[in-house]
Amino acid sequence: MLAVPATKAGQPTAVAVKFPVVEIFGPTIQGEGPDAGVPAYFVRFGGCDYRCTWCDSMHAVDPAEVRAHAERLTTEQIAHRLGALPSGPDLVVLSGGNPALLELGALVRALKQDGRRVAVETQGSRWRDWLADVDRLVISPKPPSSGMAGPEELGALQAFLDNVTLSSAPALKIVIFDQVDLEWAVERHRDHPGLPLFLSAGTDVGLREDETLNGLRGRYRWLCEAVARRADLCAARVLPQLHVIAWGTAMGV
Amino acid sequence: MLAVPATKAGQPTAVAVKFPVVEIFGPTIQGEGPDAGVPAYFVRFGGCDYRCTWCDSMHAVDPAEVRAHAERLTTEQIAHRLGALPSGPDLVVLSGGNPALLELGALVRALKQDGRRVAVETQGSRWRDWLADVDRLVISPKPPSSGMAGPEELGALQAFLDNVTLSSAPALKIVIFDQVDLEWAVERHRDHPGLPLFLSAGTDVGLREDETLNGLRGRYRWLCEAVARRADLCAARVLPQLHVIAWGTAMGV
Repeated sequence: MLAVPATKAGQPTAVAVKFPVVEIFGPTIQGEGPDAGVPAYFVRFGGCDYRCTWCDSMHAVDPAEVRAHAERLTTEQIAHRLGALPSGPDLVVLSGGNPALLELGALVRALKQDGRRVAVETQGSRWRDWLADVDRLVISPKPPSSGMAGPEELGALQAFLDNVTLSSAPALKIVIFDQVDLEWAVERHRDHPGLPLFLSAGTDVGLREDETLNGLRGRYRWLCEAVARRADLCAARVLPQLHVIAWGTAMGV
Repeated sequence: MLAVPATKAGQPTAVAVKFPVVEIFGPTIQGEGPDAGVPAYFVRFGGCDYRCTWCDSMHAVDPAEVRAHAERLTTEQIAHRLGALPSGPDLVVLSGGNPALLELGALVRALKQDGRRVAVETQGSRWRDWLADVDRLVISPKPPSSGMAGPEELGALQAFLDNVTLSSAPALKIVIFDQVDLEWAVERHRDHPGLPLFLSAGTDVGLREDETLNGLRGRYRWLCEAVARRADLCAARVLPQLHVIAWGTAMGV
């Protein structure tokens, strides 16, 4: 990666690396996983190596959409944009798409030097050494309902997890749509009992808001009842997507 | 307290202390606080020293209701009832009412000897030495909207907190209905920055289920937005009552 030369804030230079940024927003609340309910800013990067059937962030995945809508921003510009948002929390979540496709080490260092805590959400398909430097590493492997849980993806997940150390406060977050997904999550938990496990009731995409919410409530109820009866999941935590509870399926919150 | 003599499970003796038990249920999910989303059983004891305006458990508070509906059970009987529920999680939540009005040390020891983890929920109005022995102590002081946040209650809370040690994994959980409650929570957080703070969006009682849910969503959204903008609450966690999301206002779940 090219070094980012010292420039005035917000002024990129010709040699600075630029990253596809789909959204920068906050302050809001992290809606899922180990920091669910914690105030946070989000930076959503474009580009993904997966195509999950139920992806709720296709605008950050589909190459045509990313090309059309993502801004190309340098590390410095991203930090500047975050600094221009209303003040509030110290947590910044780097999400996507899959942010681990990008070389974001300089951004993580810059944000931490600004006194921020940095969390990353990635499916665990591709390791990057900068992931060891974050304050929270949320690994969200995709279960069978995603269409992205074949042997190749499982092998990549295992290789990814071989790199993870406790210093990044890692956690597994698995979206669950059905019983097959739940059994798959149990297997991951059995393979990696040291990783805190968060089960997130899946939200259907493309429905009216009332249908979305009813569906979410029904699936969350089912998931709670299914998990509560299993001794092998007594350390798991079951959560709905809190941002959907608060804001429905609106973007940018 | 009288000693509980050795007897066959479920067979009380004349000298065994009995406690007013309103509900024993599970497995379900803890819906609030630091263990929100964690599978758990609940034992709800009758009797409370507070009368919160928005109490959602009046059946465990109102003396006439407690007299009419609570069973008087010994430690041994409570443990036996828990053991007879469908198997699942290792967490047992002792709730109320205010369970700290009772001498539950023998129950905590018995449950821990059974390999269970024990959590307690209390408003922090009255210290008991057995509270030091639990695996999770959730202190839920009541904010102004409850009508139970006068100088006397604040003094009792301070005296309670003077006894709390980290071994019981203590956390503050404060139900928030409005801006006054939120400012009050900020003061408690300022006074006790070492206690993890969980803010729980209040649920209105006595409404139809759809009104209850709409109200909860609206208040949760408001609370998320209010907390996210405050640097002094960046370590707080904001949650809705997850059991209301899953099951509405049904009892026994």
